[in-house]
Amino acid sequence: MTKKTFHWGIIGLGKIAHKFAQGIAVLENASVYAVASRTPKKAKDFARQYNVEFYYNSYEDLMYCDGIDAIYIATPHVFHFENTMLCLRHKIAVLCEKPFAINNRQVQKMVATAKANNTFLMEALWTRFLPSIEKVLELIANDVIGEVHTIKADFGFKAKFDPQNRVFNNALGGGALLDIGIYPLFLALLIFGKPNNIQASAKTGTTYVDETCAMILDFPKNKIAILHATIIADTPTEAFIYGSKG
Amino acid sequence: MTKKTFHWGIIGLGKIAHKFAQGIAVLENASVYAVASRTPKKAKDFARQYNVEFYYNSYEDLMYCDGIDAIYIATPHVFHFENTMLCLRHKIAVLCEKPFAINNRQVQKMVATAKANNTFLMEALWTRFLPSIEKVLELIANDVIGEVHTIKADFGFKAKFDPQNRVFNNALGGGALLDIGIYPLFLALLIFGKPNNIQASAKTGTTYVDETCAMILDFPKNKIAILHATIIADTPTEAFIYGSKG
Repeated sequence: MTKKTFHWGIIGLGKIAHKFAQGIAVLENASVYAVASRTPKKAKDFARQYNVEFYYNSYEDLMYCDGIDAIYIATPHVFHFENTMLCLRHKIAVLCEKPFAINNRQVQKMVATAKANNTFLMEALWTRFLPSIEKVLELIANDVIGEVHTIKADFGFKAKFDPQNRVFNNALGGGALLDIGIYPLFLALLIFGKPNNIQASAKTGTTYVDETCAMILDFPKNKIAILHATIIADTPTEAFIYGSKG
Repeated sequence: MTKKTFHWGIIGLGKIAHKFAQGIAVLENASVYAVASRTPKKAKDFARQYNVEFYYNSYEDLMYCDGIDAIYIATPHVFHFENTMLCLRHKIAVLCEKPFAINNRQVQKMVATAKANNTFLMEALWTRFLPSIEKVLELIANDVIGEVHTIKADFGFKAKFDPQNRVFNNALGGGALLDIGIYPLFLALLIFGKPNNIQASAKTGTTYVDETCAMILDFPKNKIAILHATIIADTPTEAFIYGSKG
Protein backbone atom coordinates (compact mmCIF):
# COMPACT_ATOMS: atom_id res chain seq x y z
CA MET A 1 0.00 0.00 0.00
CA THR A 2 1.40 3.40 -0.92
CA LYS A 3 1.11 6.45 1.30
CA LYS A 4 -1.25 9.19 0.31
CA THR A 5 0.35 11.80 -1.93
CA PHE A 6 0.43 15.29 -0.36
CA HIS A 7 -1.11 17.78 -2.79
CA TRP A 8 0.50 21.20 -2.95
CA GLY A 9 -1.01 24.34 -4.38
CA ILE A 10 1.21 27.28 -5.25
CA ILE A 11 0.32 30.97 -5.40
CA GLY A 12 2.83 33.10 -7.28
CA LEU A 13 4.98 31.44 -9.91
CA GLY A 14 8.32 33.25 -9.80
CA LYS A 15 11.83 31.96 -9.28
CA ILE A 16 11.24 30.56 -5.80
CA ALA A 17 8.13 28.67 -6.94
CA HIS A 18 10.26 26.90 -9.56
CA LYS A 19 12.75 25.89 -6.86
CA PHE A 20 9.90 24.66 -4.71
CA ALA A 21 8.45 22.57 -7.56
CA GLN A 22 11.89 21.11 -8.27
CA GLY A 23 12.18 20.18 -4.61
CA ILE A 24 8.77 18.56 -4.55
CA ALA A 25 9.70 16.57 -7.66
CA VAL A 26 12.29 14.55 -5.74
CA LEU A 27 9.84 13.61 -3.00
CA GLU A 28 7.91 10.39 -3.24
CA ASN A 29 4.78 11.36 -1.41
CA ALA A 30 4.18 14.92 -2.58
CA SER A 31 3.21 16.60 -5.79
CA VAL A 32 2.40 20.05 -7.08
CA TYR A 33 -1.28 19.62 -7.74
CA ALA A 34 -2.53 23.08 -8.62
CA VAL A 35 -0.98 26.48 -9.28
CA ALA A 36 -2.23 30.02 -9.71
CA SER A 37 -0.71 33.09 -11.28
CA ARG A 38 -2.27 36.36 -12.32
CA THR A 39 -0.25 36.06 -15.50
CA PRO A 40 -2.13 33.40 -17.54
CA LYS A 41 0.89 32.34 -19.59
CA LYS A 42 2.92 31.76 -16.45
CA ALA A 43 0.29 29.46 -14.95
CA LYS A 44 -0.03 27.42 -18.12
CA ASP A 45 3.74 27.14 -18.73
CA PHE A 46 4.41 26.25 -15.10
CA ALA A 47 1.73 23.57 -15.10
CA ARG A 48 3.11 22.05 -18.27
CA GLN A 49 6.71 22.13 -17.05
CA TYR A 50 5.98 20.32 -13.77
CA ASN A 51 3.01 18.17 -14.78
CA VAL A 52 0.61 20.11 -12.58
CA GLU A 53 -2.99 18.93 -12.89
CA PHE A 54 -4.77 22.26 -12.39
CA TYR A 55 -3.81 25.83 -13.12
CA TYR A 56 -5.67 29.07 -12.53
CA ASN A 57 -5.35 32.71 -13.48
CA SER A 58 -6.90 33.86 -10.24
CA TYR A 59 -5.89 33.06 -6.68
CA GLU A 60 -9.56 33.05 -5.69
CA ASP A 61 -10.29 30.21 -8.15
CA LEU A 62 -7.52 28.12 -6.63
CA MET A 63 -9.43 28.21 -3.32
CA TYR A 64 -12.19 26.17 -4.87
CA CYS A 65 -9.94 23.48 -6.28
CA ASP A 66 -10.74 20.24 -4.50
CA GLY A 67 -8.04 18.00 -3.09
CA ILE A 68 -5.38 20.55 -2.10
CA ASP A 69 -3.64 19.72 1.19
CA ALA A 70 -1.68 22.94 1.58
CA ILE A 71 -0.80 26.05 -0.38
CA TYR A 72 2.67 27.47 -0.70
CA ILE A 73 2.70 31.29 -0.99
CA ALA A 74 5.53 32.37 -3.28
CA THR A 75 4.54 35.91 -4.18
CA PRO A 76 6.63 39.01 -3.35
CA HIS A 77 6.77 39.99 0.37
CA VAL A 78 4.09 42.65 0.21
CA PHE A 79 1.44 40.18 -0.99
CA HIS A 80 2.11 37.49 1.62
CA PHE A 81 -0.48 38.90 3.99
CA GLU A 82 -3.42 39.06 1.60
CA ASN A 83 -2.56 35.74 -0.09
CA THR A 84 -2.23 33.94 3.22
CA MET A 85 -5.42 35.46 4.59
CA LEU A 86 -7.30 34.32 1.50
CA CYS A 87 -6.24 30.71 2.05
CA LEU A 88 -6.80 30.72 5.80
CA ARG A 89 -10.30 32.08 5.41
CA HIS A 90 -10.96 29.11 3.13
CA LYS A 91 -9.51 26.87 5.87
CA ILE A 92 -6.63 25.84 3.63
CA ALA A 93 -3.26 25.11 5.28
CA VAL A 94 -0.53 27.59 4.34
CA LEU A 95 3.24 27.46 4.00
CA CYS A 96 4.16 31.11 3.44
CA GLU A 97 7.51 32.07 1.99
CA LYS A 98 9.58 34.20 4.39
CA PRO A 99 9.16 36.87 5.52
CA PHE A 100 5.69 36.04 6.76
CA ALA A 101 4.55 39.61 6.21
CA ILE A 102 5.95 43.10 6.24
CA ASN A 103 5.04 44.06 9.77
CA ASN A 104 4.03 42.60 13.11
CA ARG A 105 0.39 43.72 12.83
CA GLN A 106 -0.07 41.62 9.72
CA VAL A 107 1.61 38.61 11.30
CA GLN A 108 -0.58 38.83 14.40
CA LYS A 109 -3.66 38.85 12.22
CA MET A 110 -2.44 35.90 10.15
CA VAL A 111 -1.79 33.85 13.28
CA ALA A 112 -5.15 34.79 14.79
CA THR A 113 -6.95 33.89 11.57
CA ALA A 114 -5.19 30.53 11.37
CA LYS A 115 -6.25 29.78 14.95
CA ALA A 116 -9.82 30.97 14.39
CA ASN A 117 -10.10 28.68 11.37
CA ASN A 118 -8.19 25.84 13.03
CA THR A 119 -5.84 25.85 10.05
CA PHE A 120 -2.14 25.12 9.74
CA LEU A 121 0.13 28.13 9.08
CA MET A 122 3.89 28.09 8.77
CA GLU A 123 6.66 30.40 7.59
CA ALA A 124 8.95 28.82 5.01
CA LEU A 125 12.22 29.56 6.78
CA TRP A 126 14.41 26.92 5.25
CA THR A 127 17.45 27.50 7.45
CA ARG A 128 15.48 26.16 10.42
CA PHE A 129 15.69 22.74 8.83
CA LEU A 130 19.32 22.71 7.83
CA PRO A 131 21.28 19.81 9.30
CA SER A 132 23.84 22.34 10.53
CA ILE A 133 21.20 24.12 12.60
CA GLU A 134 20.05 20.81 14.06
CA LYS A 135 23.66 20.05 14.89
CA VAL A 136 24.13 23.45 16.55
CA LEU A 137 21.05 22.92 18.72
CA GLU A 138 22.31 19.47 19.61
CA LEU A 139 25.74 20.80 20.60
CA ILE A 140 24.14 23.46 22.77
CA ALA A 141 21.74 20.97 24.34
CA ASN A 142 24.67 18.67 25.13
CA ASP A 143 26.52 21.55 26.81
CA VAL A 144 29.47 21.26 24.42
CA ILE A 145 30.06 25.01 24.30
CA GLY A 146 28.68 25.72 27.76
CA GLU A 147 26.22 28.50 28.49
CA VAL A 148 25.77 30.46 25.26
CA HIS A 149 26.21 34.18 25.92
CA THR A 150 26.87 35.82 22.56
CA ILE A 151 25.67 35.30 19.01
CA LYS A 152 27.16 37.25 16.19
CA ALA A 153 25.74 36.66 12.75
CA ASP A 154 25.51 38.39 9.42
CA PHE A 155 23.98 37.89 6.01
CA GLY A 156 25.00 40.13 3.21
CA PHE A 157 25.45 40.22 -0.53
CA LYS A 158 26.07 42.98 -2.99
CA ALA A 159 22.98 43.07 -5.16
CA LYS A 160 23.29 44.72 -8.55
CA PHE A 161 21.59 48.04 -8.06
CA ASP A 162 18.36 48.36 -9.96
CA PRO A 163 15.41 50.31 -8.56
CA GLN A 164 13.08 47.69 -10.05
CA ASN A 165 14.93 44.80 -8.47
CA ARG A 166 12.75 43.25 -5.79
CA VAL A 167 15.27 43.87 -3.00
CA PHE A 168 15.62 47.57 -3.83
CA ASN A 169 11.93 48.11 -4.61
CA ASN A 170 10.11 49.63 -1.67
CA ALA A 171 6.68 48.87 -3.17
CA LEU A 172 7.60 45.17 -3.19
CA GLY A 173 8.79 45.20 0.42
CA GLY A 174 12.48 45.38 -0.42
CA GLY A 175 15.38 45.99 1.90
CA ALA A 176 17.95 43.96 3.77
CA LEU A 177 15.98 43.22 6.93
CA LEU A 178 12.97 41.49 5.38
CA ASP A 179 14.93 39.68 2.73
CA ILE A 180 17.99 38.40 4.58
CA GLY A 181 18.21 40.09 8.00
CA ILE A 182 15.60 37.54 8.93
CA TYR A 183 18.22 34.76 8.88
CA PRO A 184 20.62 36.06 11.55
CA LEU A 185 17.59 37.25 13.53
CA PHE A 186 16.04 33.80 13.33
CA LEU A 187 19.21 32.22 14.70
CA ALA A 188 19.36 34.61 17.67
CA LEU A 189 15.68 34.11 18.52
CA LEU A 190 15.93 30.33 18.06
CA ILE A 191 18.74 30.06 20.56
CA PHE A 192 17.99 32.91 22.98
CA GLY A 193 14.22 33.33 22.80
CA LYS A 194 12.59 36.72 23.08
CA PRO A 195 14.84 39.79 23.49
CA ASN A 196 14.15 42.33 26.19
CA ASN A 197 15.75 45.17 24.31
CA ILE A 198 16.49 45.92 20.66
CA GLN A 199 18.78 48.59 19.31
CA ALA A 200 19.02 48.89 15.58
CA SER A 201 20.11 51.18 12.83
CA ALA A 202 19.13 51.03 9.19
CA LYS A 203 20.73 52.87 6.30
CA THR A 204 18.30 53.61 3.55
CA GLY A 205 19.35 54.19 -0.02
CA THR A 206 17.90 56.16 -2.91
CA THR A 207 14.89 53.84 -3.19
CA TYR A 208 14.09 54.23 0.53
CA VAL A 209 14.65 50.61 1.47
CA ASP A 210 17.12 49.61 4.20
CA GLU A 211 20.27 48.67 2.33
CA THR A 212 22.08 47.94 5.57
CA CYS A 213 20.68 47.03 8.90
CA ALA A 214 22.57 46.50 12.15
CA MET A 215 21.04 45.21 15.37
CA ILE A 216 22.05 44.67 18.97
CA LEU A 217 19.60 42.48 20.85
CA ASP A 218 19.74 42.10 24.61
CA PHE A 219 18.27 38.97 26.11
CA PRO A 220 17.54 37.93 29.68
CA LYS A 221 20.42 36.41 31.66
CA ASN A 222 23.04 38.72 30.18
CA LYS A 223 22.93 37.30 26.67
CA ILE A 224 23.50 39.39 23.57
CA ALA A 225 23.24 39.16 19.80
CA ILE A 226 25.01 41.37 17.30
CA LEU A 227 23.48 41.07 13.86
CA HIS A 228 24.09 42.59 10.46
CA ALA A 229 22.40 42.33 7.10
CA THR A 230 23.09 44.18 3.91
CA ILE A 231 22.29 44.13 0.23
CA ILE A 232 25.18 46.40 -0.73
CA ALA A 233 28.20 44.38 0.38
CA ASP A 234 29.39 40.80 0.11
CA THR A 235 29.84 39.95 3.77
CA PRO A 236 31.14 36.63 5.13
CA THR A 237 27.56 35.53 5.94
CA GLU A 238 28.52 33.50 8.92
CA ALA A 239 27.48 33.02 12.51
CA PHE A 240 29.49 32.79 15.70
CA ILE A 241 27.97 31.27 18.79
CA TYR A 242 30.03 31.89 21.89
CA GLY A 243 29.51 29.98 25.08
CA SER A 244 31.26 29.77 28.43
CA LYS A 245 33.28 26.82 27.16
CA GLY A 246 34.28 28.38 23.86
CA MET B 1 77.91 63.95 13.73
CA THR B 2 75.37 61.72 15.46
CA LYS B 3 71.83 62.78 16.13
CA LYS B 4 70.80 63.62 19.65
CA THR B 5 69.54 60.62 21.60
CA PHE B 6 65.92 60.95 22.70
CA HIS B 7 65.66 60.31 26.43
CA TRP B 8 62.61 58.42 27.63
CA GLY B 9 61.31 58.26 31.15
CA ILE B 10 58.86 55.52 32.15
CA ILE B 11 56.24 55.58 34.89
CA GLY B 12 54.93 52.14 35.85
CA LEU B 13 57.15 49.12 35.21
CA GLY B 14 54.81 46.27 34.35
CA LYS B 15 54.67 44.03 31.30
CA ILE B 16 54.00 46.78 28.78
CA ALA B 17 56.93 48.85 30.10
CA HIS B 18 59.21 45.91 29.38
CA LYS B 19 57.90 45.70 25.83
CA PHE B 20 58.43 49.43 25.43
CA ALA B 21 62.02 49.20 26.68
CA GLN B 22 62.71 46.29 24.33
CA GLY B 23 61.34 48.39 21.48
CA ILE B 24 63.47 51.37 22.40
CA ALA B 25 66.52 49.11 22.54
CA VAL B 26 66.42 48.52 18.78
CA LEU B 27 66.27 52.23 17.99
CA GLU B 28 69.46 54.13 17.30
CA ASN B 29 68.49 57.51 18.58
CA ALA B 30 66.47 56.73 21.68
CA SER B 31 67.14 55.32 25.09
CA VAL B 32 65.31 54.64 28.32
CA TYR B 33 66.97 57.22 30.50
CA ALA B 34 65.02 57.14 33.75
CA VAL B 35 62.27 54.98 35.25
CA ALA B 36 60.02 55.15 38.29
CA SER B 37 58.05 52.53 40.16
CA ARG B 38 56.42 52.63 43.55
CA THR B 39 57.90 49.18 44.12
CA PRO B 40 61.62 49.87 44.81
CA LYS B 41 62.82 46.46 43.69
CA LYS B 42 61.01 46.80 40.36
CA ALA B 43 62.70 50.12 39.63
CA LYS B 44 66.14 48.82 40.47
CA ASP B 45 65.74 45.55 38.54
CA PHE B 46 64.27 47.30 35.50
CA ALA B 47 67.10 49.84 35.46
CA ARG B 48 69.69 47.11 35.66
CA GLN B 49 68.02 45.00 32.95
CA TYR B 50 67.86 47.81 30.39
CA ASN B 51 70.87 49.89 31.39
CA VAL B 52 68.75 52.77 32.57
CA GLU B 53 70.78 55.59 34.08
CA PHE B 54 68.32 56.77 36.75
CA TYR B 55 65.65 55.03 38.71
CA TYR B 56 63.21 56.32 41.31
CA ASN B 57 60.75 54.94 43.82
CA SER B 58 58.44 57.92 43.46
CA TYR B 59 56.87 59.37 40.32
CA GLU B 60 57.28 62.85 41.80
CA ASP B 61 61.06 62.40 42.00
CA LEU B 62 61.17 61.45 38.33
CA MET B 63 59.76 64.90 37.50
CA TYR B 64 62.95 66.48 38.75
CA CYS B 65 65.29 64.28 36.75
CA ASP B 66 67.12 66.50 34.24
CA GLY B 67 67.41 65.55 30.61
CA ILE B 68 64.17 63.65 30.03
CA ASP B 69 62.56 64.38 26.65
CA ALA B 70 59.28 62.55 27.21
CA ILE B 71 57.67 60.21 29.69
CA TYR B 72 55.83 57.06 28.78
CA ILE B 73 52.95 56.26 31.17
CA ALA B 74 52.64 52.49 31.57
CA THR B 75 50.56 52.21 34.73
CA PRO B 76 47.09 50.56 34.88
CA HIS B 77 44.25 52.49 33.20
CA VAL B 78 42.90 54.08 36.34
CA PHE B 79 46.19 55.86 37.08
CA HIS B 80 46.74 57.32 33.59
CA PHE B 81 44.97 60.52 34.48
CA GLU B 82 46.91 61.40 37.62
CA ASN B 83 50.27 60.23 36.19
CA THR B 84 49.77 62.22 32.99
CA MET B 85 48.62 65.31 34.85
CA LEU B 86 51.72 65.15 37.08
CA CYS B 87 54.01 65.19 34.04
CA LEU B 88 52.09 67.87 32.16
CA ARG B 89 52.13 70.19 35.16
CA HIS B 90 55.89 69.81 35.11
CA LYS B 91 55.80 70.64 31.39
CA ILE B 92 57.11 67.20 30.48
CA ALA B 93 55.94 65.65 27.19
CA VAL B 94 53.78 62.56 27.66
CA LEU B 95 53.11 59.41 25.69
CA CYS B 96 50.29 57.79 27.63
CA GLU B 97 49.44 54.13 27.18
CA LYS B 98 45.90 53.55 25.88
CA PRO B 99 43.27 54.15 27.02
CA PHE B 100 44.12 57.78 27.74
CA ALA B 101 41.88 57.78 30.80
CA ILE B 102 38.74 56.15 32.04
CA ASN B 103 36.27 58.81 31.05
CA ASN B 104 35.83 61.81 28.81
CA ARG B 105 36.03 64.34 31.65
CA GLN B 106 39.55 63.19 32.49
CA VAL B 107 40.63 63.27 28.85
CA GLN B 108 39.31 66.80 28.39
CA LYS B 109 41.29 67.93 31.40
CA MET B 110 44.46 66.21 30.21
CA VAL B 111 44.20 67.88 26.81
CA ALA B 112 43.48 71.27 28.36
CA THR B 113 46.44 70.91 30.71
CA ALA B 114 48.76 69.94 27.87
CA LYS B 115 47.66 73.03 25.94
CA ALA B 116 47.93 75.33 28.96
CA ASN B 117 51.48 74.11 29.55
CA ASN B 118 52.34 74.03 25.85
CA THR B 119 53.36 70.42 26.27
CA PHE B 120 53.17 67.43 23.96
CA LEU B 121 50.57 64.78 24.84
CA MET B 122 49.82 61.63 22.90
CA GLU B 123 47.92 58.39 23.41
CA ALA B 124 50.00 55.30 22.69
CA LEU B 125 47.59 53.66 20.29
CA TRP B 126 49.97 51.43 18.41
CA THR B 127 47.53 50.24 15.77
CA ARG B 128 47.44 53.77 14.32
CA PHE B 129 50.99 53.19 13.14
CA LEU B 130 50.64 49.74 11.69
CA PRO B 131 51.65 49.52 8.04
CA SER B 132 48.31 47.82 7.37
CA ILE B 133 46.40 50.84 8.66
CA GLU B 134 48.52 53.14 6.51
CA LYS B 135 47.77 50.89 3.55
CA VAL B 136 44.03 50.96 4.29
CA LEU B 137 44.01 54.74 4.42
CA GLU B 138 45.96 54.83 1.17
CA LEU B 139 43.49 52.47 -0.55
CA ILE B 140 40.57 54.58 0.63
CA ALA B 141 42.28 57.82 -0.44
CA ASN B 142 42.94 56.33 -3.87
CA ASP B 143 39.26 55.38 -4.23
CA VAL B 144 40.09 51.69 -4.61
CA ILE B 145 37.04 50.56 -2.66
CA GLY B 146 34.89 53.55 -3.51
CA GLU B 147 32.89 55.48 -0.94
CA VAL B 148 33.23 53.59 2.34
CA HIS B 149 29.80 53.02 3.86
CA THR B 150 30.20 50.26 6.45
CA ILE B 151 32.89 49.23 8.92
CA LYS B 152 32.54 46.07 10.90
CA ALA B 153 35.25 45.28 13.38
CA ASP B 154 35.78 43.24 16.48
CA PHE B 155 38.46 42.56 19.05
CA GLY B 156 37.97 39.72 21.46
CA PHE B 157 39.87 37.16 23.46
CA LYS B 158 38.89 34.78 26.18
CA ALA B 159 40.80 35.92 29.24
CA LYS B 160 41.28 33.42 32.03
CA PHE B 161 38.78 34.51 34.62
CA ASP B 162 40.38 35.90 37.75
CA PRO B 163 38.78 38.75 39.70
CA GLN B 164 42.28 40.15 40.36
CA ASN B 165 43.23 40.07 36.68
CA ARG B 166 43.53 43.64 35.40
CA VAL B 167 40.86 43.17 32.72
CA PHE B 168 38.29 41.82 35.20
CA ASN B 169 39.22 44.18 38.02
CA ASN B 170 36.84 47.12 38.20
CA ALA B 171 39.13 49.07 40.53
CA LEU B 172 41.86 48.94 37.88
CA GLY B 173 39.54 50.12 35.10
CA GLY B 174 38.93 46.65 33.64
CA GLY B 175 36.44 45.64 31.00
CA ALA B 176 36.37 45.02 27.28
CA LEU B 177 35.70 48.57 26.09
CA LEU B 178 38.68 50.31 27.68
CA ASP B 179 41.10 47.49 27.09
CA ILE B 180 40.35 46.38 23.54
CA GLY B 181 37.05 47.94 22.39
CA ILE B 182 39.20 50.97 21.80
CA TYR B 183 40.78 49.31 18.73
CA PRO B 184 37.68 48.75 16.59
CA LEU B 185 36.38 52.13 17.80
CA PHE B 186 39.60 53.81 16.76
CA LEU B 187 39.31 52.34 13.28
CA ALA B 188 35.74 53.58 12.83
CA LEU B 189 36.58 57.07 14.08
CA LEU B 190 39.77 57.22 12.01
CA ILE B 191 37.90 56.50 8.79
CA PHE B 192 34.48 58.05 9.45
CA GLY B 193 35.19 60.87 11.92
CA LYS B 194 32.72 61.76 14.63
CA PRO B 195 29.52 59.71 14.93
CA ASN B 196 26.16 61.44 15.20
CA ASN B 197 24.55 58.60 17.10
CA ILE B 198 25.80 55.76 19.26
CA GLN B 199 23.86 52.71 20.35
CA ALA B 200 25.64 50.28 22.60
CA SER B 201 25.08 47.44 24.96
CA ALA B 202 27.47 46.11 27.57
CA LYS B 203 27.20 42.86 29.47
CA THR B 204 28.75 43.04 32.87
CA GLY B 205 30.01 40.03 34.74
CA THR B 206 30.40 39.16 38.40
CA THR B 207 33.13 41.77 38.87
CA TYR B 208 30.98 44.52 37.35
CA VAL B 209 33.19 45.21 34.37
CA ASP B 210 31.86 45.01 30.82
CA GLU B 211 32.86 41.57 29.60
CA THR B 212 31.19 42.14 26.26
CA CYS B 213 30.41 45.36 24.55
CA ALA B 214 28.56 45.86 21.26
CA MET B 215 28.19 49.16 19.44
CA ILE B 216 26.38 50.55 16.44
CA LEU B 217 27.66 53.96 15.41
CA ASP B 218 25.84 56.10 12.89
CA PHE B 219 27.86 58.65 11.00
CA PRO B 220 26.88 61.50 8.69
CA LYS B 221 26.29 60.62 5.03
CA ASN B 222 24.63 57.30 5.79
CA LYS B 223 27.72 55.55 7.09
CA ILE B 224 27.65 52.96 9.82
CA ALA B 225 30.00 51.00 12.06
CA ILE B 226 29.19 47.75 13.85
CA LEU B 227 31.71 47.01 16.56
CA HIS B 228 32.23 44.30 19.12
CA ALA B 229 34.72 43.72 21.89
CA THR B 230 34.86 40.99 24.48
CA ILE B 231 37.13 39.46 27.06
CA ILE B 232 35.15 36.23 27.36
CA ALA B 233 35.39 34.82 23.83
CA ASP B 234 38.09 34.32 21.24
CA THR B 235 36.62 36.25 18.32
CA PRO B 236 38.18 36.54 14.86
CA THR B 237 39.50 40.04 15.73
CA GLU B 238 39.22 41.36 12.24
CA ALA B 239 37.87 44.37 10.42
CA PHE B 240 35.78 44.66 7.29
CA ILE B 241 35.65 47.92 5.42
CA TYR B 242 32.93 47.99 2.80
CA GLY B 243 32.80 50.60 0.08
CA SER B 244 30.66 51.21 -2.98
CA LYS B 245 33.23 49.36 -5.08
CA GLY B 246 33.58 46.40 -2.76
